[in-house]
Amino acid sequence: MIRAAVVGATGFTGSELIRILLGHPDVELAAVTSENHAGKRLTIVHPALEGMIDLVLTAANDLNASDYDVLFLALPHRVSMHYVLRWHTEDVAIIDLSGDFRLSDASTYEQWYNVEHVLPDLVPVVPYGLPELNRSSMAGARLVANPGCYPTASILAMAPLVRAGLVDTRSIIIDAKSGLTGAGAGNTDTTHFANVNDNFRAYGLKTHRHTVEIEDLLGQFSDKRTTVQFTPHLLPVDRGILATCYATALDALDDAQVFKLYSDAYADEPFVRVRNQAPSLKQVRGTNFCDIYATFDDRTGRYIVVSVIDNLMKGAAGQAVQTMNILFSLSESSGLDQFPLQP
Amino acid sequence: MIRAAVVGATGFTGSELIRILLGHPDVELAAVTSENHAGKRLTIVHPALEGMIDLVLTAANDLNASDYDVLFLALPHRVSMHYVLRWHTEDVAIIDLSGDFRLSDASTYEQWYNVEHVLPDLVPVVPYGLPELNRSSMAGARLVANPGCYPTASILAMAPLVRAGLVDTRSIIIDAKSGLTGAGAGNTDTTHFANVNDNFRAYGLKTHRHTVEIEDLLGQFSDKRTTVQFTPHLLPVDRGILATCYATALDALDDAQVFKLYSDAYADEPFVRVRNQAPSLKQVRGTNFCDIYATFDDRTGRYIVVSVIDNLMKGAAGQAVQTMNILFSLSESSGLDQFPLQP
Amino acid sequence: MIRAAVVGATGFTGSELIRILLGHPDVELAAVTSENHAGKRLTIVHPALEGMIDLVLTAANDLNASDYDVLFLALPHRVSMHYVLRWHTEDVAIIDLSGDFRLSDASTYEQWYNVEHVLPDLVPVVPYGLPELNRSSMAGARLVANPGCYPTASILAMAPLVRAGLVDTRSIIIDAKSGLTGAGAGNTDTTHFANVNDNFRAYGLKTHRHTVEIEDLLGQFSDKRTTVQFTPHLLPVDRGILATCYATALDALDDAQVFKLYSDAYADEPFVRVRNQAPSLKQVRGTNFCDIYATFDDRTGRYIVVSVIDNLMKGAAGQAVQTMNILFSLSESSGLDQFPLQP
Amino acid sequence: MIRAAVVGATGFTGSELIRILLGHPDVELAAVTSENHAGKRLTIVHPALEGMIDLVLTAANDLNASDYDVLFLALPHRVSMHYVLRWHTEDVAIIDLSGDFRLSDASTYEQWYNVEHVLPDLVPVVPYGLPELNRSSMAGARLVANPGCYPTASILAMAPLVRAGLVDTRSIIIDAKSGLTGAGAGNTDTTHFANVNDNFRAYGLKTHRHTVEIEDLLGQFSDKRTTVQFTPHLLPVDRGILATCYATALDALDDAQVFKLYSDAYADEPFVRVRNQAPSLKQVRGTNFCDIYATFDDRTGRYIVVSVIDNLMKGAAGQAVQTMNILFSLSESSGLDQFPLQP
Repeated sequence: MIRAAVVGATGFTGSELIRILLGHPDVELAAVTSENHAGKRLTIVHPALEGMIDLVLTAANDLNASDYDVLFLALPHRVSMHYVLRWHTEDVAIIDLSGDFRLSDASTYEQWYNVEHVLPDLVPVVPYGLPELNRSSMAGARLVANPGCYPTASILAMAPLVRAGLVDTRSIIIDAKSGLTGAGAGNTDTTHFANVNDNFRAYGLKTHRHTVEIEDLLGQFSDKRTTVQFTPHLLPVDRGILATCYATALDALDDAQVFKLYSDAYADEPFVRVRNQAPSLKQVRGTNFCDIYATFDDRTGRYIVVSVIDNLMKGAAGQAVQTMNILFSLSESSGLDQFPLQP
Repeated sequence: MIRAAVVGATGFTGSELIRILLGHPDVELAAVTSENHAGKRLTIVHPALEGMIDLVLTAANDLNASDYDVLFLALPHRVSMHYVLRWHTEDVAIIDLSGDFRLSDASTYEQWYNVEHVLPDLVPVVPYGLPELNRSSMAGARLVANPGCYPTASILAMAPLVRAGLVDTRSIIIDAKSGLTGAGAGNTDTTHFANVNDNFRAYGLKTHRHTVEIEDLLGQFSDKRTTVQFTPHLLPVDRGILATCYATALDALDDAQVFKLYSDAYADEPFVRVRNQAPSLKQVRGTNFCDIYATFDDRTGRYIVVSVIDNLMKGAAGQAVQTMNILFSLSESSGLDQFPLQP
Repeated sequence: MIRAAVVGATGFTGSELIRILLGHPDVELAAVTSENHAGKRLTIVHPALEGMIDLVLTAANDLNASDYDVLFLALPHRVSMHYVLRWHTEDVAIIDLSGDFRLSDASTYEQWYNVEHVLPDLVPVVPYGLPELNRSSMAGARLVANPGCYPTASILAMAPLVRAGLVDTRSIIIDAKSGLTGAGAGNTDTTHFANVNDNFRAYGLKTHRHTVEIEDLLGQFSDKRTTVQFTPHLLPVDRGILATCYATALDALDDAQVFKLYSDAYADEPFVRVRNQAPSLKQVRGTNFCDIYATFDDRTGRYIVVSVIDNLMKGAAGQAVQTMNILFSLSESSGLDQFPLQP
Repeated sequence: MIRAAVVGATGFTGSELIRILLGHPDVELAAVTSENHAGKRLTIVHPALEGMIDLVLTAANDLNASDYDVLFLALPHRVSMHYVLRWHTEDVAIIDLSGDFRLSDASTYEQWYNVEHVLPDLVPVVPYGLPELNRSSMAGARLVANPGCYPTASILAMAPLVRAGLVDTRSIIIDAKSGLTGAGAGNTDTTHFANVNDNFRAYGLKTHRHTVEIEDLLGQFSDKRTTVQFTPHLLPVDRGILATCYATALDALDDAQVFKLYSDAYADEPFVRVRNQAPSLKQVRGTNFCDIYATFDDRTGRYIVVSVIDNLMKGAAGQAVQTMNILFSLSESSGLDQFPLQP
């Protein structure tokens, strides 16, 4: 059994990691941490788990990293790198779910995250944990940067077209919509029910940090400069991201060819389902799937791609466990066989 | 492997049976039926299941019952008994999720359901499939009546108090609130989003059929006449029932004693969690749990009990699988180890 | 024109007062206060009102009370009485929307609100501003206590039966469900979208302060001791309260007689609509209506009454303006002619 | 008083017309029609309006058009033109809320709506009722085509940029999100609560009819060919459209200049509010406002414009009443002074 610790167990991502790991046949969930609730039984904070887990929350600093095989860091950006600094030389695999090691160099990070990086030399060498596109570089890693939720949905949607050189890489527009858990478990004006229910809004126009993460990754599949227009929106739903992606065609395909392009690209992927019609969020709720529908509009000369994920699963905790499965040479879908909860 | 067929696979209850059975380690889901969609692949109707199941829907009449070990009938009231009539002499276990065999005698059924029963002699002998209260009478049965959703939440909430003789059995009031899936998958004014979203209403005052089902069962635990005031309401949520139950005390207990009464009553039950504060729907979403909180109000002399279930799980499909596990001598929680999807 | 000030303009109740007063033909909204946002234009805090109001928020302490004809205090319990203390001797009418002056004596208040009252002698003489039942005592008042949201729905539902002596006044059970705005505009675990959406729960069992307010008022209509079991619940909707009320009959009426009893009781009331079927929240959304459906269950010997209000209108701001109309001898429905927003 | 009839009074748009017209100071709502409910009192179908209106629904064919000053046709596409055919020579103003007379020529209509037009010669001459851009051509009209909901939000968002020649008119992408009332009052799989709640999806990619309506109108503001990529989505909210619009800049403006461009363009418009941050749906709920935020992204060289409307108000019924006000020389905001219902 793999001994796992979840560092930051009371946020949405940490909770979802617990939900998965408790059901994982090859994992023993051995520690959970929380700065605010250290000393409490986890089920006090997550009463839904009563009877399923008997751990007491500890402070992250009290964790002896080498007691575990893998640490999942479900911590805020800017905070997480300090724990990586503390533990990265220990004999433990670390999967960092923050944004601190996702970009290809530290200076870009510092520019978009407004903070000095404490491990700048590590940033370029840490693999980006998107198995569908990056599996080979992840093998044997001791530290993996788990992708952001929006980038996961966006990159999986656009990579086949970009890699095939079919689109103008400066024409990409990603209009993304996220469930409210993407805004975090903190109690803010943004998360107050009355501001979300029966409401909808755009935010972070032009400036969202996931923009650079998407550009960074898609840029690796093209020798052209890649510029992405990324606009996130907040949906009155708990979970899920739907990304509607647009790009101007350099070469036209008919829809059968588009379907084949995507089906071939993801033929061996257990978690990508290529669809022949636009998917909805609930189709993937509670699962690690990314469902993708791609089409070409010959009236406008554009490709349109719609992808959906569960932001807490394929967009965070599920993908992190998928990565763990790779690092430990398990079946990649081990512990990730949840069925969609629909309705 | 137990070969199972789901008769009526496209409604909410049938879909939920599929979700459970596909993940059940001891079951092969071998057939699914639908009158409206016979001939289609199931994933056409349930695209969320793409890649997980490869069955084609057949008409119920084309089913050869003895090819299966167990049939789950997820059919409307009044319809289901005709299929029981057809199949009940075959070599197959039948779990009927309709209301057709739940009551203690056919004449009561005919009065509340306004239809002549086609198997009146069977009604009194078919066991009521609520394992927590009726496990012994279910053993060895070939036909079991799966309880209604409201009765499951209500009876589990009140049985310990009634059995202990602590309450006036004519004072019981059950104010119950259900998620919209309880209203069925049909497209009606009742299920139109604009009539449900940001809305709430009571319905079926004084006349809901689950009233007599609750009275019937609770009455078995008392030698006094049992009369229940039952009022259902429709919530703008997908899943879940919360029942707020009131009864006048004959004898007072303090809250520690109430907690002990319930904890003892359900000590060996894998799916009942006795709580020390009022539970919420999401605590049990997607699971077979019934969470119960009971308290005594010495100011008014009443017991108040709040229970929650997922109406599609413990209120329907989950309970049916629990019953199947009993009939086939499996571990009672086999295939029912889902974790709550929260948030 | 009546010059009005809203003290506490940024909470839900204050905002709703502004919505009404801006459209009131006889009122000039002359001042709005906020401790947290003093100095900002109101439309910074309430961008929805852009172009409709040009006031700057001030601190309550900077208000010169006698510059206004009426002050609406939309402040928290325990805080409000201090402002009443400051202003009640000034030449201004005060409508207090908090709970500080609603009960019939200060000692009961102190027991349920856990604080010493600063104006104990005033408590018994301040009229309770429920016009339908208390209009005569409100005339000429300079300070009125605006009823709580749950009490408004509950008292209007039960008063005709209690006054007619038709029910056992110790048998009353009120199972009430409120929209989330009832929990306030503060950012807490209770108001976080992920804890409310697709969820439902009971709270405040046995102990909610509105219990005593309901008992106090209903008790005035009976010479018997009146004890109310009151259980509130939190709905995943913005606005609205639905109260399902139960009481054991001393005398039975048929439903036509019940309808007549209620129709007669509220014959001259512009804001009470007696219904012949159970109402839903959206029927009254955005309006000052209270819709009531009452019925007798001869199987159980109980009356069941279902009432709905918009908690921010008839349950708070609308009722306060109705009271202002009375105090200033305006038509009682002046400024309160909003149509239900449905859907 | 203007005597008005609403033809098709039981759908969402018809209901909203009633809500507005009942409160309009210059209008007498004199007739309401419904094919399915003819003979019933309107309040049977719309119980929320109890006490506010006493009309009986009639069949449209029984309407004597010349008894009224204005007819609002809230009928389905393809059906509406037959009633226009019947009534357009009568002495009555007609405001048609369907798509039958919106396009600039009948052949385009026939191509996108798959039906032969019964009044092809009228199509090019009927004014498009978007007052902000088309007021002069509406004056004196006896028949006006009320714009579609998506086109209203989209055209108001993009017109200032297109008119100023600042954008490539073939680069326009409109990613629009609508509340569920946009899908109509019919009971379908699309409108079933369980398919909408906590869900989100795109639909009508490449083919939605509003595409050509938007191109038609925006094209009038440019001498260049205008091609629009339009993608609608369905939100789990009752009301509202948010359109996120993208276009490649021909000339760059800074944000202050963009704000001035829009402020100048809509300086005299009572219902357009130019914003300095992205608006949300609830800001305009229940009102006739269109709120617009426009910005330039110098990193990508694109303009991004976000607009919101209430699809039943500015997107349908409110705009129709605004047009009526123009046709009858009333103040343009008469009867349209609703305040946003927030929350």
